[in-house]
Amino acid sequence: MKIVLDAMGGDNAPDANIKGAVNAINKVKAEVILVGKEDIIRSKIKEFYGKELEQISSRLKIKNATETIEMEDTPTIAIKHKKDSSMVVGFKMLKEDEGDVFISAGNSGALLTGATLLVGRIKGIDRPALAGILPAYHSQLLLIDAGSNTNCKPINLLQFAQMSTIYIRNTFGIEHPAIGLLNIGTEETKGNDLVKESYKLLKEKSEELGINFVGNVEGRDAFSGKIDAIVTDGFTGNVFLKTTEGLGKFVKKTLTESFMKNIISKILAVPSLPALKRFSKEMDYKSYGGALFLGVKKPVVKAHGSSDELLFEYTIIQAEKFVENKAVDKMIDEFEKLNSKKAEEKLQNNMQ
Amino acid sequence: MKIVLDAMGGDNAPDANIKGAVNAINKVKAEVILVGKEDIIRSKIKEFYGKELEQISSRLKIKNATETIEMEDTPTIAIKHKKDSSMVVGFKMLKEDEGDVFISAGNSGALLTGATLLVGRIKGIDRPALAGILPAYHSQLLLIDAGSNTNCKPINLLQFAQMSTIYIRNTFGIEHPAIGLLNIGTEETKGNDLVKESYKLLKEKSEELGINFVGNVEGRDAFSGKIDAIVTDGFTGNVFLKTTEGLGKFVKKTLTESFMKNIISKILAVPSLPALKRFSKEMDYKSYGGALFLGVKKPVVKAHGSSDELLFEYTIIQAEKFVENKAVDKMIDEFEKLNSKKAEEKLQNNMQ
Repeated sequence: MKIVLDAMGGDNAPDANIKGAVNAINKVKAEVILVGKEDIIRSKIKEFYGKELEQISSRLKIKNATETIEMEDTPTIAIKHKKDSSMVVGFKMLKEDEGDVFISAGNSGALLTGATLLVGRIKGIDRPALAGILPAYHSQLLLIDAGSNTNCKPINLLQFAQMSTIYIRNTFGIEHPAIGLLNIGTEETKGNDLVKESYKLLKEKSEELGINFVGNVEGRDAFSGKIDAIVTDGFTGNVFLKTTEGLGKFVKKTLTESFMKNIISKILAVPSLPALKRFSKEMDYKSYGGALFLGVKKPVVKAHGSSDELLFEYTIIQAEKFVENKAVDKMIDEFEKLNSKKAEEKLQNNMQ
Repeated sequence: MKIVLDAMGGDNAPDANIKGAVNAINKVKAEVILVGKEDIIRSKIKEFYGKELEQISSRLKIKNATETIEMEDTPTIAIKHKKDSSMVVGFKMLKEDEGDVFISAGNSGALLTGATLLVGRIKGIDRPALAGILPAYHSQLLLIDAGSNTNCKPINLLQFAQMSTIYIRNTFGIEHPAIGLLNIGTEETKGNDLVKESYKLLKEKSEELGINFVGNVEGRDAFSGKIDAIVTDGFTGNVFLKTTEGLGKFVKKTLTESFMKNIISKILAVPSLPALKRFSKEMDYKSYGGALFLGVKKPVVKAHGSSDELLFEYTIIQAEKFVENKAVDKMIDEFEKLNSKKAEEKLQNNMQ
């Protein structure tokens, strides 16, 4: 297996990307290929580790790419014109089977545009979407769309529900994952127009499409562990994701300060350090890695823009699992079956 | 001062409402008037405390109301037809100066309809909105609209910014509160259509209206303590609020389990109990009471639907402060000044 990592994308690139790849290399079986300016990557590795890249691992590689897509670049223009950027080169490797998964922490818009234009959508999916994995009570929660489609239609939300069902079944082994619609109340009549119409469509189509639709879900019940995925538009989903992140940071800071208030509280905290560690581990969104871009023909992982070396390491490990589970291949298969079923029905209808 | 409490509204009514009022009565200077079925309230008090209502406090009163608005009731119909419901009677007391603030944990839609129809909007405000107060790092965060207007226009968000500025200045003593627009990125070009247009309008009008508009704010920065209020539509705001709540519950449960995992971790946790208590207090959204309904002519407080007796107690104490600060009177004054200034300008323009 070959994991392709955009070495130049993200707030802490290329240092964090390179260090994350080096840290991960002995925890994965795959090759890790850093895409970016070869001379810079080589000199950084020498600086950080006092060794040549080849001395670190025979599975650590470089693919040279001379350009970089910046955060300020307009997505479509950048993808079309910066042909030798780390992102475009990475996507081409994916397309030409020189890589099995592509990870980037760079410009989100460009990543989504590139995935759609250069790798291509799965037939039957109008809008691919970012799926984030969040911690939940003794479980995890898949959030789709976590931020790629700011304006959505009900059909998009239905397809998000289909994709999450297939993904969760194949990755977490949950046969009938519970899919909820993010709303501000559990009643059918609640919400804005998009949510009301999506509710109707999901209710109507869920049996036919094998979706275990559990109805509207409020944010207050999202982390209960009873819901496996929540579907929503990319604006609301991104607000949800970032609110979770913001509150998480605030909790951590406040908890630390409560324990570190003075020398006495610091000493008193020592016996409970294992419990605190257990708590941190359970809560840490980082251990869930990046967000998956579902609906394209190959595995694409969006790493957090502010990824540090630890987060890159986690994301690489998760990406390997993503490929091992063949989640994307299975998704293509299931949608193909669905498409041919539809085509058959259409043919039969026309013949009647 | 007279605090009017809907005794029949909320998931735990009337028990939690009555107990909350009894708990609060010695912590406030005001009279607390329970509105609801007198015979039930009297017999509950006898059951809980073995005393008559009059024996508990001379400041604890009842106003009889024979009907109740249920959660399933259609707001407008309920307000128009259930004329002897605890909610309608409560609003009438407010209107006729038999009460200074009305608190209800009942049907949100009915509460908002009642406040607008029976108490009336402040001139210059098109849509009153719920303002929730959340904990933030060494500070607090006002969230408006927390859930009353599912579909909003840019002008509504501008007015929410005006109202929060006036409210925060008068309540928390922050002369130029920092007002942010909830978005999925900090750049001007980010977000859905509503947010993009609202950004433009806020930027254009903020100086004239004395709003310290700090631009787009992401959920991840909302709790940093640097932002005093975030404005958003009622759908997104409610998702934000409930996500915060859901994650808070999850954090609490996980933290408790980490410390209570086994007998050893329980013993080891003892020395750090003060730190844990400090943390809980800092985080507890309950101590911030209910949400304020800003933009109507009298103080109206929406208590949490699932309020327990402790939360009712907090909400009553907070409601007293809300009245003492004269936040609503000051808001009426400021909008009147603004309206007469506008009228004058219009007159001058016409004369030119």
